[in-house]
Amino acid sequence: MSELILRNDTGPIARLVMNSPTNFNALSAEMIAGLYTTLATIANDDEIGVVILAAEGKAFCAGHDLRQMQAARANRDGGRAGYVALFDGCSQLMQLISTLPQPVIAEVQGVATAAGCQLVASCDLAIASEKARFGVNGIDIGLFCSTPAVALSRVIPRKAAFHMLATGEFLSAEEAARLGLVNRTVPAEKLADETMALAEKIAAKLPSAMGMGKRGFYEQLGHDTPSAYEAACDTMVANMMLRDTDEGINAFLEKRRPDWDDTAEEEAAPGSDPVRA
Amino acid sequence: MSELILRNDTGPIARLVMNSPTNFNALSAEMIAGLYTTLATIANDDEIGVVILAAEGKAFCAGHDLRQMQAARANRDGGRAGYVALFDGCSQLMQLISTLPQPVIAEVQGVATAAGCQLVASCDLAIASEKARFGVNGIDIGLFCSTPAVALSRVIPRKAAFHMLATGEFLSAEEAARLGLVNRTVPAEKLADETMALAEKIAAKLPSAMGMGKRGFYEQLGHDTPSAYEAACDTMVANMMLRDTDEGINAFLEKRRPDWDDTAEEEAAPGSDPVRA
Amino acid sequence: MSELILRNDTGPIARLVMNSPTNFNALSAEMIAGLYTTLATIANDDEIGVVILAAEGKAFCAGHDLRQMQAARANRDGGRAGYVALFDGCSQLMQLISTLPQPVIAEVQGVATAAGCQLVASCDLAIASEKARFGVNGIDIGLFCSTPAVALSRVIPRKAAFHMLATGEFLSAEEAARLGLVNRTVPAEKLADETMALAEKIAAKLPSAMGMGKRGFYEQLGHDTPSAYEAACDTMVANMMLRDTDEGINAFLEKRRPDWDDTAEEEAAPGSDPVRA
Repeated sequence: MSELILRNDTGPIARLVMNSPTNFNALSAEMIAGLYTTLATIANDDEIGVVILAAEGKAFCAGHDLRQMQAARANRDGGRAGYVALFDGCSQLMQLISTLPQPVIAEVQGVATAAGCQLVASCDLAIASEKARFGVNGIDIGLFCSTPAVALSRVIPRKAAFHMLATGEFLSAEEAARLGLVNRTVPAEKLADETMALAEKIAAKLPSAMGMGKRGFYEQLGHDTPSAYEAACDTMVANMMLRDTDEGINAFLEKRRPDWDDTAEEEAAPGSDPVRA
Repeated sequence: MSELILRNDTGPIARLVMNSPTNFNALSAEMIAGLYTTLATIANDDEIGVVILAAEGKAFCAGHDLRQMQAARANRDGGRAGYVALFDGCSQLMQLISTLPQPVIAEVQGVATAAGCQLVASCDLAIASEKARFGVNGIDIGLFCSTPAVALSRVIPRKAAFHMLATGEFLSAEEAARLGLVNRTVPAEKLADETMALAEKIAAKLPSAMGMGKRGFYEQLGHDTPSAYEAACDTMVANMMLRDTDEGINAFLEKRRPDWDDTAEEEAAPGSDPVRA
Repeated sequence: MSELILRNDTGPIARLVMNSPTNFNALSAEMIAGLYTTLATIANDDEIGVVILAAEGKAFCAGHDLRQMQAARANRDGGRAGYVALFDGCSQLMQLISTLPQPVIAEVQGVATAAGCQLVASCDLAIASEKARFGVNGIDIGLFCSTPAVALSRVIPRKAAFHMLATGEFLSAEEAARLGLVNRTVPAEKLADETMALAEKIAAKLPSAMGMGKRGFYEQLGHDTPSAYEAACDTMVANMMLRDTDEGINAFLEKRRPDWDDTAEEEAAPGSDPVRA
């Protein structure tokens, strides 16, 4: 894998770092391919329970690589075939995040614009530095952020999304948290630790249950309610039939730690129960 | 009906109380069947205009009955058929709430977890004590809350829902109100009175209009916008053709109380009009 | 065009004013037809980049014209055919706003009720005076606001929408902003200026990109995610192939103003870039 993306595993947690600070971690064809290949590899890695997506430098991600895109105009078709491939590949990357069995957490240290903002919106979870900012400001250069809008309009309210798209204005981290684009904000100096703490918490859960649960979560969102329940019931039954779920429930009823085969960490343990506590 | 569910009618308001505090009002097969039967009866009761769903004891509802679920594993199929029936029955109950002609208000005095949180999400409206808490924490014992996710992801923002599902963390009542899981919070000692006041306000409206309006509300949510408008126009026309709506509009124009045939309360009256006030 | 609707153009900004304050700008058949015709004309007017929808008098819009609706009951069919035509025409108007190539901003100076609230919900953007209020209170006179619910339930959380519909209670402007019904609130005396400033900001963008972006935005909302991305990729490619987008990107890379053919204003300029600033 290219040095474009650094990977550092801590037990069951894979931390990926977009490492192209000089161009603000632009989603060049190479960056998109690198992220796709890295994530696709992780998808089949049973040792990994959670993915963190972080970035090096001042910006989290500045969206597509404009110089690369403009260069394609020299082609005989004016660039069209290249743009089709670029946006298709980028959209596949965004959707791969949702279909990955492991939860993916965006660790947003700086500004995230256009497809970079889409990347944050596409992650299952996101924690942002109080210094981060978010915009889908392609309209400022004559390119309405239509593909970022797909992800953005599914995580924040409709009028707020349209406002960002039509004005190019940026959200502060606090506004992004209020609207639902990120889960919460933390001081810049605590970002890495807080994101790792969230990853560790999730990695301590049963990976097989997490994987089928995440898949089911996104599947049901696209259905009407009766169909969503049909799909979700199938998932629940399959989850109940796991040996480790049997053990997890027994351990809970017996007030002891579960002995899970499919555990990502030695210290895996069920959370406390506020009812019975 | 079993003592599992207490019913207390005050005029047109049916207040149901889940009455199994020793197991935190778990949604056992019996509790699900009891709630379903009680609500299905109310669906056909023209005297009832609003339903309150409350609970006895410390918890509102702790979700499925884990001991009962584990016992089913002794069956020849390892419990599968029982789980299919359980989750299907529970999903039918949740959807019955939306198809009931009367609005259903959750009165949440304590913690609501897993399918208990789903029950709150599934009610049309919810008022919570400031002491209530909300979680879909099945993942802590190896069972991702896939069916609760259907209801939860339709009332709160996507990333907030996934966070609850993947971490098992609880929302405070205040957070639940901010996110849209409940309509508002009140001090614990005012919960019953405030919920009753909301029920009385709704019960004073025209029940036939409320019933067709509620049905239309959930129907259109599943459609794209053009189809939603087609369905909603049909509902509006049918509503306009009601004799009582004719009277309601005339009364408003003549600044008097309507003389409704289909009224749930003697004191039924239209609300004040802020434009003309 | 009737005096019911005043139109005042300032460069590329068309400001429409509903001008029937004596009946609180009710959406009579004439008002609906007037708005529809005015907007349909603007849809084909390349000189217009943004529309502001404002209102004269104390109320923004009080919904349908109840006296006119009651008069239709004298017809042989009790009014049914007239109601079908009325609600269909009104729904077409609401959907025309979304299909208009130009963004439409509601400038809400006063109360917006029933179909008037729907009108605000249907605009792409909305700025409200701190004195404005919002309600879908038809249920108070026996007419559940089923068509307004289509627009409302797509911009604010589900339980908040149902609460408004079932109780007839009003939102303050501040609550409307928090829930997503309007983008923000401003002091009454600044409303016109702030709305115009927002319109000017949007009018300075590339109109052709704005038009295809807005169309794509609403189109993808009705699709599941994979289909949404397919449609959005087509839009992005088409946007990239515009001559003015080529110029906009070049100008950005060269840190100069773009020389756009299709510009609405002389002073059109890309926004500042927070990454590279």
